Amino acid sequence: MTDLTWQTAITKVEPNKISVHGYRIDEMMGKLSFSQAIYLILKGELPTEKVGKMIDAMLVSSIDHGVSPPSTLAAITAASTGSAMNGALACGILAINKFHGGAVEGCMNVLKKIAAVKNERSLSIEKSVESVVNDFRNKKKRVPGFGHRLHSKDPRSIKLFKLAHEYEIAGEYVDIAKTIEVYLEKTSNRSLPINVDGALATVLCELDFQPSLGNVFFIMARIPGLVAHVVEEQTRQKPMRKIHPTAYEYDGKSQRTIT
Amino acid sequence: MTDLTWQTAITKVEPNKISVHGYRIDEMMGKLSFSQAIYLILKGELPTEKVGKMIDAMLVSSIDHGVSPPSTLAAITAASTGSAMNGALACGILAINKFHGGAVEGCMNVLKKIAAVKNERSLSIEKSVESVVNDFRNKKKRVPGFGHRLHSKDPRSIKLFKLAHEYEIAGEYVDIAKTIEVYLEKTSNRSLPINVDGALATVLCELDFQPSLGNVFFIMARIPGLVAHVVEEQTRQKPMRKIHPTAYEYDGKSQRTIT
Amino acid sequence: MTDLTWQTAITKVEPNKISVHGYRIDEMMGKLSFSQAIYLILKGELPTEKVGKMIDAMLVSSIDHGVSPPSTLAAITAASTGSAMNGALACGILAINKFHGGAVEGCMNVLKKIAAVKNERSLSIEKSVESVVNDFRNKKKRVPGFGHRLHSKDPRSIKLFKLAHEYEIAGEYVDIAKTIEVYLEKTSNRSLPINVDGALATVLCELDFQPSLGNVFFIMARIPGLVAHVVEEQTRQKPMRKIHPTAYEYDGKSQRTIT
Amino acid sequence: MTDLTWQTAITKVEPNKISVHGYRIDEMMGKLSFSQAIYLILKGELPTEKVGKMIDAMLVSSIDHGVSPPSTLAAITAASTGSAMNGALACGILAINKFHGGAVEGCMNVLKKIAAVKNERSLSIEKSVESVVNDFRNKKKRVPGFGHRLHSKDPRSIKLFKLAHEYEIAGEYVDIAKTIEVYLEKTSNRSLPINVDGALATVLCELDFQPSLGNVFFIMARIPGLVAHVVEEQTRQKPMRKIHPTAYEYDGKSQRTIT
Repeated sequence: MTDLTWQTAITKVEPNKISVHGYRIDEMMGKLSFSQAIYLILKGELPTEKVGKMIDAMLVSSIDHGVSPPSTLAAITAASTGSAMNGALACGILAINKFHGGAVEGCMNVLKKIAAVKNERSLSIEKSVESVVNDFRNKKKRVPGFGHRLHSKDPRSIKLFKLAHEYEIAGEYVDIAKTIEVYLEKTSNRSLPINVDGALATVLCELDFQPSLGNVFFIMARIPGLVAHVVEEQTRQKPMRKIHPTAYEYDGKSQRTIT
Repeated sequence: MTDLTWQTAITKVEPNKISVHGYRIDEMMGKLSFSQAIYLILKGELPTEKVGKMIDAMLVSSIDHGVSPPSTLAAITAASTGSAMNGALACGILAINKFHGGAVEGCMNVLKKIAAVKNERSLSIEKSVESVVNDFRNKKKRVPGFGHRLHSKDPRSIKLFKLAHEYEIAGEYVDIAKTIEVYLEKTSNRSLPINVDGALATVLCELDFQPSLGNVFFIMARIPGLVAHVVEEQTRQKPMRKIHPTAYEYDGKSQRTIT
Repeated sequence: MTDLTWQTAITKVEPNKISVHGYRIDEMMGKLSFSQAIYLILKGELPTEKVGKMIDAMLVSSIDHGVSPPSTLAAITAASTGSAMNGALACGILAINKFHGGAVEGCMNVLKKIAAVKNERSLSIEKSVESVVNDFRNKKKRVPGFGHRLHSKDPRSIKLFKLAHEYEIAGEYVDIAKTIEVYLEKTSNRSLPINVDGALATVLCELDFQPSLGNVFFIMARIPGLVAHVVEEQTRQKPMRKIHPTAYEYDGKSQRTIT
Repeated sequence: MTDLTWQTAITKVEPNKISVHGYRIDEMMGKLSFSQAIYLILKGELPTEKVGKMIDAMLVSSIDHGVSPPSTLAAITAASTGSAMNGALACGILAINKFHGGAVEGCMNVLKKIAAVKNERSLSIEKSVESVVNDFRNKKKRVPGFGHRLHSKDPRSIKLFKLAHEYEIAGEYVDIAKTIEVYLEKTSNRSLPINVDGALATVLCELDFQPSLGNVFFIMARIPGLVAHVVEEQTRQKPMRKIHPTAYEYDGKSQRTIT
């Protein structure tokens, strides 16, 4: 038989000892938040406390967006037929693609392109943004991460940028993203504010994540929301109901504040 | 057309305002950890700070267990054929079932049954455990949540119980779980220590979660680990390799401690 | 390393020779229909020509049922977000469960139970049916495979029974199924005709398939239908549209006949 | 509410009448094979009898390839953890991608490109093949559909071409495919015979299917094979076994012939 031995560099499992990138998992427990552990397993190193809090804020920002996203509808459609929880969650994840949750990666690529243009051609941020955004327009393509059909000022984006400053993470990519927003505002006839995909993309660039990991943050964040919707479907609804995509009403808790 | 209007009680989405169980998501960001937000979306109320930390520890405990679990093997098998990330993650989730990650729910049911027997029949914990465990034995079934093929003293279980005490969450269910462990030790000819599924089950019972949500914690926790393995497959391995389930070697970071 | 060698009895692959249950695949091609090959791979033996035709009719009967089934809605919801074809098909399959397409197995178990009662207690078919159906009623459960919200006389069931007679496959299970239908008609205040799940179940019992394979025939049959709907979504619809579950219109080919 | 009415052109469902592209499903049953119905639902018209037989041969050719393909390994890995059948099949489908079963579409695009070059530039088949194949080589890319790590003369490809002639389907695309094979033989230092993906691609081009449907034929064909392997896993193997990707032995039926 040919040698099929292979190598892995993530987690070492020994009897009574499990280590992620060298850190014992029982030491991580109680010392690291889940968000810090997520950063560790994806990047190989521990985040600073501020970066850990940034990850928390990013994941919280995308934990749910109600019943209308296709990922939620796909998950509850499966649940309505009697699916096990994991089947319904798989359905939900399979409905997170280019047109839903998928703009994070695209926006990261745009931001990195603009940074590259700026550095390679020694241009100002404004000129670099203009050049790359005009390329999109000439190809009749939208700049991913900008514009939302419902939110004209996405509260999640605003807060993500605010926290990026507070946690001292904001840098060149935040400047680029804001410059894009201004340029689109000036040159479009409709408002195209940075949406949550775009804000996540900006922060992920600041944290030096690969664009290919962009959508993964959306998926990781949304799983608990999908779980909640599947449970609601299983407990409040009749099997095999017709699920209308817009005729729903919120009948949950009233507005309240964290004290 | 019949009225297809339906109700949802999780998240209210209005223009420029998104609220989860009544809390504005932009207020949650920066104030709540992801783990606290997970508790909120699943239970409808905010956790105490200590409960939030317990959730963190639970999710960290199960973030990864190396390349050998079937969920990891299923995910990297799909990745090896060129799957998109979401397809590979869906594969991983679909391989989390009764025999892998699925003992949390089963163990929660056992713990709740023992608590019920104890209260209904006014028995001691020891007698209640004996009664329910013997039922399993008479049916030639294993008590879910106990025994591990590799770990004789699972460091994750030990730490979860330690933290449950530290965070003042430990109560009757911890007593029951420990009593089961002692009884199995005394009456089995092989060691059946409480494993991480059993420890998660115990803490989830203390936190008053439904048993049907048990496996969901394992799934939520494991997603980031699956992501890391899929990225490793995509970046370190050749497509369509033969994936040997045991002939792997760890070549990552050496042992280190959190400072 | 422990010996991980395992055995498989389905397909033997040698250089330039592939054999399914002993038959060379290149010999099968051109001699066997796909339906005959499906029977072979699942049962291990070749079907008679008539049984092969019965399989064809069964698979044709369930190839599609328009856009309203949840499996179709789940598949096109994923497609609408930009999913790859295999992801959308996986979504569709994950929405085939107990309450949708899942009655085949349940009905097979009922038919087999009635046959067992009949033989063990030496009862008439009528008395055996009465006994088992009344058990369901006492438990407030519906008999799976009977009743349809749209079709009062399901044309697929009628034709499956007709062909079962024509192909000389009809036997005891067809008698049992028809007796159930009569008994339900007599004792219910609403019509509960045998539906396509029930008719498939009956024929599968006659062909001596395991009940656990029941739903698989529905899944195999429905895949091409799901493919057609995903292609239609990709080519006729805009991404991320709101998919209304009942407000659709058929604008395809007019009624015609096979000549 | 905005109008969400939408159109579909595949299947019309009326009470007691279901029609696929205008043909009543109960008329199709008994008159059409499953393969003919698959052609109808995907193309909108009935195939000739010969084309129907060609579809049968194509689907039979890819019904299974033993336990080693990643789609099979992914499906049985899920099954081994206790997955429901539909979850295991979804896993299998999710492992059919670019590097496994995914060459059909790529090869169809190559064949169509060569045909276009030939017609647009009025070149011979040989010159057209040379031009397009050399483009691939200059980009250091393999021509999809040629070469197999096990089969030097793939019996499935040979038979598909033979039947394409017998059923009078062979035309320009068969010529192109054979010319590619000859050119690769002449100019490569290793044998790159047309594999089953390439042969399917050739026939699908002759039948005027869209390249985007190429992989779908592989998926539709492989489902019954996956079902058989999942059943075998469930019935012959212990849960959570370590699944070795090469250390398996065939212990099924001996060689036999269709009589």
